[in-house]
Amino acid sequence: MNDARGVTVWFTGLSGAGKSTISEGVLHELRNRGTRVELLDGDLVRTNLSKGLGFSKEDRDINIRRIGFVADLLTRNGVTVLVAAISPYREARDEVRAQIGDFLEIHVSATLDTLVERDVKGLYRKAIAGELANFTGVSDPYEEPTDPELVIRTDNEDVQLSIERVLRLLDDFVAQRDGDASPREAQAG
Amino acid sequence: MNDARGVTVWFTGLSGAGKSTISEGVLHELRNRGTRVELLDGDLVRTNLSKGLGFSKEDRDINIRRIGFVADLLTRNGVTVLVAAISPYREARDEVRAQIGDFLEIHVSATLDTLVERDVKGLYRKAIAGELANFTGVSDPYEEPTDPELVIRTDNEDVQLSIERVLRLLDDFVAQRDGDASPREAQAG
Repeated sequence: MNDARGVTVWFTGLSGAGKSTISEGVLHELRNRGTRVELLDGDLVRTNLSKGLGFSKEDRDINIRRIGFVADLLTRNGVTVLVAAISPYREARDEVRAQIGDFLEIHVSATLDTLVERDVKGLYRKAIAGELANFTGVSDPYEEPTDPELVIRTDNEDVQLSIERVLRLLDDFVAQRDGDASPREAQAG
Repeated sequence: MNDARGVTVWFTGLSGAGKSTISEGVLHELRNRGTRVELLDGDLVRTNLSKGLGFSKEDRDINIRRIGFVADLLTRNGVTVLVAAISPYREARDEVRAQIGDFLEIHVSATLDTLVERDVKGLYRKAIAGELANFTGVSDPYEEPTDPELVIRTDNEDVQLSIERVLRLLDDFVAQRDGDASPREAQAG
């Protein structure tokens, strides 16, 4: 009865691409369904787990590993975990995927033109002007996922549709995993 | 159906007092029962959440708040969380208690003589000789809980009995909380 596993849905992508908006929409829908779900948002995590860390590759990787540690604890206890974090380095994301196992990677993407146009906090302009170091996508690298479970291009897609696509991915994953047979039986068969 | 809450059982006390031994025993028993349970041990947490933090009051408090953040996430999702951490400052422990709500504080205690006698890692001798700064109980303060749910004096008590007392405390707490009526009904009545 206590074997039910959760899953981690990991949203990666540049600042302003739409990770928080989409993950908050998914959170809302899952809460309405009565699912046990938590959202670990980049800003929340920086405050509660990673204060003092900067934006060097090393510090970013430590930040991602900490999120991974917490997401793993929750996932193995049956919680659906939504992570919204830039997580620019492929190796760190793959490490977390291997650790958690039940893991869906979603690349939330928009063209740089769109991001500069949105630029709510004015950070892209600053970074492009050379006034902001370590800004992912401009003055710091972003390594795109090579094989994500889903790509969402937010310059072309309505938010509500994006949320529905994530929910469908999640439902399909859980149905396939927990479907007809338990993993043990499936393996034996 | 998804309202079931967990509880955090927080073991505080000096190094070598028996926090890890007792909490591991409780973990083992609860796993055998099929309870969803996690142990956040001081060393594990230092590695996975708090690498880079030292042993100043400020850093110790940050460490405790991080453990509290993770324990809260798990507790509100139905997990029983065992925390074994020196957690020497009363204010930080009380802050975590207020945050989590479903919280049982256990003071695991032994006389300094006993601790020096055990001194598996030779740290007490070093600290007493003045060779180890910030060592809780010798060169750093330990603020005893004023009103813990349980005190275990490990110089006088068999480990197995300690484990049983913790389990009884836990069972009584959950029975009283989830007992006859839901909290809402109890309040209304």
